[in-house]
Amino acid sequence: MLQDRVAIEDLLVRYCRHLDEMDLDALAALFTPDCVVEYGPGRLMTSHGSAQLRSSLERMWRWRRTAHHLANVEIDFGAGGDDAVARSAVTAWHERPDGSTGTVLGRYTDHVRRLPAGWRIARRRMEMVGNDAGFDVNLYRFERQAPPDGWTPPSPADL
Amino acid sequence: MLQDRVAIEDLLVRYCRHLDEMDLDALAALFTPDCVVEYGPGRLMTSHGSAQLRSSLERMWRWRRTAHHLANVEIDFGAGGDDAVARSAVTAWHERPDGSTGTVLGRYTDHVRRLPAGWRIARRRMEMVGNDAGFDVNLYRFERQAPPDGWTPPSPADL
Amino acid sequence: MLQDRVAIEDLLVRYCRHLDEMDLDALAALFTPDCVVEYGPGRLMTSHGSAQLRSSLERMWRWRRTAHHLANVEIDFGAGGDDAVARSAVTAWHERPDGSTGTVLGRYTDHVRRLPAGWRIARRRMEMVGNDAGFDVNLYRFERQAPPDGWTPPSPADL
Repeated sequence: MLQDRVAIEDLLVRYCRHLDEMDLDALAALFTPDCVVEYGPGRLMTSHGSAQLRSSLERMWRWRRTAHHLANVEIDFGAGGDDAVARSAVTAWHERPDGSTGTVLGRYTDHVRRLPAGWRIARRRMEMVGNDAGFDVNLYRFERQAPPDGWTPPSPADL
Repeated sequence: MLQDRVAIEDLLVRYCRHLDEMDLDALAALFTPDCVVEYGPGRLMTSHGSAQLRSSLERMWRWRRTAHHLANVEIDFGAGGDDAVARSAVTAWHERPDGSTGTVLGRYTDHVRRLPAGWRIARRRMEMVGNDAGFDVNLYRFERQAPPDGWTPPSPADL
Repeated sequence: MLQDRVAIEDLLVRYCRHLDEMDLDALAALFTPDCVVEYGPGRLMTSHGSAQLRSSLERMWRWRRTAHHLANVEIDFGAGGDDAVARSAVTAWHERPDGSTGTVLGRYTDHVRRLPAGWRIARRRMEMVGNDAGFDVNLYRFERQAPPDGWTPPSPADL
């Protein structure tokens, strides 16, 4: 199981590196051929199959540079040990050709599957937790719990 | 020991996720009932016990969104293998209801303990390493070593 | 191998912590005596040997505070198991005495070697993937693949 954890974390990390390298062939090979990947409601933001994902991610060339840094990996294995749900967080920094930037803090929920050749991402959904003013892509939103009725903010003197 | 490392790292990562979800029941369950948690000198910034911690962290609803990303985990086990010191770094991004943000780069020093139900945080201290102008919470400060007497800055031409 | 992965990741994380602590003795001890470390083309930006590295990194005192957060660790072991190539990403935040800041998103490529006393970094090269306007150090540049001939940006309506 520990070897599998390492292999799955490697998979998620390689996605980040290959995206920043814009090595889309290497990136697409991390996914199952029939993968479903969804970033947001836009037409290009959901892909069916790794070939369509590869083609769709050519959109990332509209940025001059990107940096995707992964954190907070959690992995829950299914009963058979050949599939797992991996949750992680990402800081994704993007720079436009004019030098302006946009950063998004997101979360990935991935269903990963063991194929004969190794672990692959079969389903990925990204949600946006936070973003700066320069990031304007319409991603799915992460939701947090609402405060209880009657909650009042603390006094600044107590912080 | 490797299984314990994974379990302890999971514990630290779940803290981040549950805080961003504002799932304070799940967050409080990561701590021992008698935990001591200190973020800074303010009255609400130290908690004794997981119930008080849960209540105190309701203050985080004054932010509209937060994202806590963990990095740099180091774990040193005690002699018996049932306790450990875990050190880590966190990037904590916070957004106010008016859209303004504050980010702090901090460090956690955690004493973790194995209970029958699993590893829990018994003591946490946070220190602030860096922050941007928008982050104005009075956290404890991380200290670095001072330069030796007579240190002079390098010439920009050598950088 | 898993124990070695943990030890190598610890090594990379300790570098970050000791640099932020400015504990340069502890930092230099993470490298082989004959290490080669290169950050950029400037005279102080390449070091031969851990003693020279220690001395060269005194330049970091020109910052008032720094925070180095590691991510995306990938480790490939050599055939004998006593050396490895470790790749990682770093967010490095720097604050000047006047309060202005500079952040760089970089990548480390490290050749690590098992010595009798443990794993050490024998060769490190840093490359800059991204940076904000406040970061003006001349680091080596990370290169990504160019778009294919005839690539056209997507329609914003599809994003």
